[in-house]
Amino acid sequence: MHVLITGAAGMIGRKLTERLIIDRALGDHLIEKLTLLDVVAPVRPAGFSDHVKTRAADLAAAGVADKAISERPEVIFHLAGVVSGEAELDFDKGYRVNLDGTRALLEAIRAAGGSYKPKVVFTSSIAVFGAPFPESIPDDFALTPLTSYGTQKAMCELLLADYNRRGILDGIGIRLPTICVRPGKPNKAASGFFSGIIREPLAGQEAILPVADSVRHTHASPRAAVGFLLHAASLTREQLGPRINLAMPGVSCTVGEQIAALARVAGPKVAARIRREPDELVARIVGGWAERIDATRARELGFTAEASFDDIIRAHIEDELGGRVA
Amino acid sequence: MHVLITGAAGMIGRKLTERLIIDRALGDHLIEKLTLLDVVAPVRPAGFSDHVKTRAADLAAAGVADKAISERPEVIFHLAGVVSGEAELDFDKGYRVNLDGTRALLEAIRAAGGSYKPKVVFTSSIAVFGAPFPESIPDDFALTPLTSYGTQKAMCELLLADYNRRGILDGIGIRLPTICVRPGKPNKAASGFFSGIIREPLAGQEAILPVADSVRHTHASPRAAVGFLLHAASLTREQLGPRINLAMPGVSCTVGEQIAALARVAGPKVAARIRREPDELVARIVGGWAERIDATRARELGFTAEASFDDIIRAHIEDELGGRVA
Repeated sequence: MHVLITGAAGMIGRKLTERLIIDRALGDHLIEKLTLLDVVAPVRPAGFSDHVKTRAADLAAAGVADKAISERPEVIFHLAGVVSGEAELDFDKGYRVNLDGTRALLEAIRAAGGSYKPKVVFTSSIAVFGAPFPESIPDDFALTPLTSYGTQKAMCELLLADYNRRGILDGIGIRLPTICVRPGKPNKAASGFFSGIIREPLAGQEAILPVADSVRHTHASPRAAVGFLLHAASLTREQLGPRINLAMPGVSCTVGEQIAALARVAGPKVAARIRREPDELVARIVGGWAERIDATRARELGFTAEASFDDIIRAHIEDELGGRVA
Repeated sequence: MHVLITGAAGMIGRKLTERLIIDRALGDHLIEKLTLLDVVAPVRPAGFSDHVKTRAADLAAAGVADKAISERPEVIFHLAGVVSGEAELDFDKGYRVNLDGTRALLEAIRAAGGSYKPKVVFTSSIAVFGAPFPESIPDDFALTPLTSYGTQKAMCELLLADYNRRGILDGIGIRLPTICVRPGKPNKAASGFFSGIIREPLAGQEAILPVADSVRHTHASPRAAVGFLLHAASLTREQLGPRINLAMPGVSCTVGEQIAALARVAGPKVAARIRREPDELVARIVGGWAERIDATRARELGFTAEASFDDIIRAHIEDELGGRVA
């Protein structure tokens, strides 16, 4: 089996790659070839060799999608995209990469024609939803994005569903909740503090909390996100039916509950490394985000996330810190 | 004021044009210029002169949208598009005209920049919804189209909302129910019989009914559709808020109720001109369509449709038959 990952150099892309290289299989199928595509060349995982190809290219550029599809990958994890903040700042780039890049990929699949009908797993986002919300967002809630990023994800979901309906591909769109704890350095994303208030204290550093402890949000670990992707690839058309875009499960908790979990898992000394410094702008942005998501269909279809925020913290300590807390 | 109508040669476009020429104003504003755009040159309404310009051009073709916007129309009724059946049969044409044409128009507005910020009234469709439905579709129901046409309309709604949110234009998308009674000849559209079973008997001809009398659907007259467009143009950003795409009201009734209304309005002899000839394919297609739509927000915002199917029939007799029944 040939597996293609777009956006392979991103955080989730790298973790998915690692997992596929370790497993060397997807479900019951041996992975004979793994192609890693991104606008910057994905790093070749050390110690693994000839079945992994990397390529630096922009899907929205002429011919790139056709070339990627010319090798007929049976499974495509389409993670490529610019993030929320960038899509908001650079209107043209957001639409070009997130919408036109995805459309180019789907069109290349359609152009291939014949019996070629790959599985396409698309990472969407709960940013397809915008306030006002009910207390918990049901599966049949309207697409009401309040960012260009969310708009582009929602448009791609619709496109994917139409290509799926027409039998051009077997598609599934998974709406990721906020991925927490993101490894790496703090970033300027409005959502960054959700990870920062766990990651920095665990690394012995101070973290800034810009919102109230009462702010509620839904989280899943990077490990859970990789699990969503693998499970999504295993589902059949028949299992999915016509509504192929699904909100993923996660742990809904308040910032206060995140901090309490940190104190339980790593001790009160670690949890004390959080400094409260309210930021009106961040508070306002985060106020428009989903607090709770039903994810009823996803759970019924077997998608699983962590059961508690404690588990999310433990996953981070295991996967990123070698089990050690500073 | 300069008003641009795209898709001006279509049925709704022609009726909107007639109305704007008679009124010579939109709300409190005198219409100094009215531009009618379509892929085929719209017919110049007889007896009206220099303030009406017609143009044959395809919005999705290079430069066309820029040229249309170069004249800075203050209000744009964007009705252009290929219909459901054609978009389903011709994948490329549907996406090119319905999605790319709309995007080209919005991009031309963005490119104009400066203080130019037109009102854009976009005709969407209840085809953005696909079964399974609740008994009546609420305003916050998911976009779940089951046709390429519905997909394209839903994608354009999202695009319009993002351009609106960014302050590039003042947008509103109105989701039209089935327009009934459509004037003119019978056509092959799966929805054609909803109009045919009224129009043909009123004209002294036999009509074929391919579905059961129990089939329920939502209708509004062509006159009501023009009313929706004019009312949409009058609403402000503040009245609309961020959710600018609205399902329009209509009369929800069964085919049996349509026929009973015909007998009431035009007599049992007219209603007897309907021949039942079940068609499995039509029944299956229509089975995926919305039966009832709440349209709560639209009603609150002042959109009105007919109060009964009797009124829809009377509107047809007045507007198309000069008040006479055959």
